[in-house]
Amino acid sequence: MKITVIGGTGPQGQGLAQRFARAGVDVILGSRDAARAATIAEDLAGQLGDAPGTISGMDNLAAVEAANEFVILAVPYGGHDATLKSIKSGLAGKILVDIVVPLAEGNPKKAAMPLEGSATESAQAMLGDHIPVVGALHNVSAHVLADLEQGINCDILVCGNNLEAKQKVMALIEQLGVTCYNCGLAESARCIEALTPILIRLNMSKTTPFRHGGVKIWAE
Amino acid sequence: MKITVIGGTGPQGQGLAQRFARAGVDVILGSRDAARAATIAEDLAGQLGDAPGTISGMDNLAAVEAANEFVILAVPYGGHDATLKSIKSGLAGKILVDIVVPLAEGNPKKAAMPLEGSATESAQAMLGDHIPVVGALHNVSAHVLADLEQGINCDILVCGNNLEAKQKVMALIEQLGVTCYNCGLAESARCIEALTPILIRLNMSKTTPFRHGGVKIWAE
Repeated sequence: MKITVIGGTGPQGQGLAQRFARAGVDVILGSRDAARAATIAEDLAGQLGDAPGTISGMDNLAAVEAANEFVILAVPYGGHDATLKSIKSGLAGKILVDIVVPLAEGNPKKAAMPLEGSATESAQAMLGDHIPVVGALHNVSAHVLADLEQGINCDILVCGNNLEAKQKVMALIEQLGVTCYNCGLAESARCIEALTPILIRLNMSKTTPFRHGGVKIWAE
Repeated sequence: MKITVIGGTGPQGQGLAQRFARAGVDVILGSRDAARAATIAEDLAGQLGDAPGTISGMDNLAAVEAANEFVILAVPYGGHDATLKSIKSGLAGKILVDIVVPLAEGNPKKAAMPLEGSATESAQAMLGDHIPVVGALHNVSAHVLADLEQGINCDILVCGNNLEAKQKVMALIEQLGVTCYNCGLAESARCIEALTPILIRLNMSKTTPFRHGGVKIWAE
């Protein structure tokens, strides 16, 4: 299994890469700057010691082409559409996992959804139905991902219009030791993506006793 | 303290009324049918035995006028706008707590948001800024509310444009033994209200091991 993380040199991408490598998945970091991706990949792999999965780095399109099946998009929202356009030609036959949250510029406590309703829906519209888009991992902070000593403190709410793709992505992510929930069609991303600025607000608030809260489905 | 629950004869309203009465809050059930409200109020109070708070029933507008400060709107979404119009004249000087979720007609696994973005925002637009609207309690199922032997199994995500009103509502609801979180402005209701059809989907799914899941903010 070889997955690609586009924007893999960013804070979320780095934590994801290390956690997947530790779970035995080979990870390719994609970046606009192939040399930078390779350097960071080497650093991350070095920190892990002898993890069962490898971490390597390439430019975005080469990274997408090298993935077996899963390409995780983890760029800041400002680069979401342009990056997707630049990798679209490599995505045929693969599944795009969109983890991008449309935060308002200059205000991470506010969502600024695209006209399609959410980043996940806009990605699906841009790619066309033959490339399934699955929204996931929106609510896990980079800080939580980077702290490899700790488990991931939340559940993963997953959505998308293609059930088979969604089930595959859930199985992939569950290798990180989390519980994934199938939250329905891509339009559920309007809710799931918008949870992140609410969590950021709570994490920044002086009135909450935590700084890295996540969300859990609770049934007891 | 005397609060009113409009739609108080419905399943969510009944559970809320009993829980508030048990917490020492006097509750007035509002209904279009005053006699029905009075009968159900008597039944609910009878079930509780000697709770510190009372439960009574009136027609909607009388119930709103009799509330000290808080009016909880708990009608099905189909009646949201018409009910609000019918009680608007009694709301001056009070706080409307909107717990209504815009579920799609015939499909409780799907949100059908009004043009304003959410029920909370549409209520605020209808009432005008001088009557603060606070969105809360959207994600607690009627089943959970009705089971008085159990605590409420989730956190309460609260939003609204008036901070003071929001803080008062949080203090009111915390009397039910739950944790409330200030989730920002009324527009956060687009996310919070839309969580409910996602929870309904999970609760109905054969692949989840629970039937009455809620949502919790989690920081450990």
